[in-house]
Amino acid sequence: MENLMDLYVHELRDLHNAESQIINALPKMIKAATHDELRNAFEDHFEKTKKQKERLENIFSDLNEEPNDVKCKGIEGIIKESEELLKNDTDSEVLDAVLIASAQRVEHYEMAAYGTARSFAARLGRSHDVRLLQETLDEEGEADYKLTSIAERIVNAEAATA
Amino acid sequence: MENLMDLYVHELRDLHNAESQIINALPKMIKAATHDELRNAFEDHFEKTKKQKERLENIFSDLNEEPNDVKCKGIEGIIKESEELLKNDTDSEVLDAVLIASAQRVEHYEMAAYGTARSFAARLGRSHDVRLLQETLDEEGEADYKLTSIAERIVNAEAATA
Repeated sequence: MENLMDLYVHELRDLHNAESQIINALPKMIKAATHDELRNAFEDHFEKTKKQKERLENIFSDLNEEPNDVKCKGIEGIIKESEELLKNDTDSEVLDAVLIASAQRVEHYEMAAYGTARSFAARLGRSHDVRLLQETLDEEGEADYKLTSIAERIVNAEAATA
Repeated sequence: MENLMDLYVHELRDLHNAESQIINALPKMIKAATHDELRNAFEDHFEKTKKQKERLENIFSDLNEEPNDVKCKGIEGIIKESEELLKNDTDSEVLDAVLIASAQRVEHYEMAAYGTARSFAARLGRSHDVRLLQETLDEEGEADYKLTSIAERIVNAEAATA
């Protein structure tokens, strides 16, 4: 990698692969969730994630680049961690707390990576990309906020008295 | 895992292992950094990270629990990703941008995980733990802000004209 454009394309590929891994993981999380409000939040985020991946594909197309995914090891590790916890003998009372803890790590990884990509796009003068990346960043922030609310209002209280 | 306390201890163990991995990775990042301001930021964060690990050890001691680290696969993946990028033929002009992108992923992982642990501690009525975890959360937020500033003022501009 020689310049910021190379690194920008690399970041976009990392994110595109991250979105694919998340699209693959979310149906399992939807199935595992026990509270309706959490399941609905995951279902909503599943639809948003598919749109976020499309936004990246629009950027690739504008750049005349292919996604050629780079395996996103950060997201892979976070998802593995969560799958191991779900496989363990985790009681149903704490299951949703495990799911939220893992989903918020995923959101935060994306916030960091999309924030980096947006900074690169701004420096490269790609204002249309900046807008698309900011839309996703806003959605990630909202999803994270919603999960904190579900955890603190409902899930953690039940897990504490289990 | 049967209740929120089990999950809280698990989160603390994950974080304790994450801090150990970060303490192991930071000297390599300090060595690789080319801009003085970035190197100083990493050096400062290295000292803070050692204190953050000690805060967790204080919490374990209060809980009469041992760290018994759980391998933190999330941080492991993020660090691996960065090490591969540094091994690749990455030009020195973009090296600092790579280091910052990776460090901000680490900060965000920690923000998510410490935020979860703080919520658990609050629900469990452990107000001293909440204060300790919040101190670390504040430091992570400040470190992230500082890295964005270094990237946007100095590093990305140079990488863009490389």
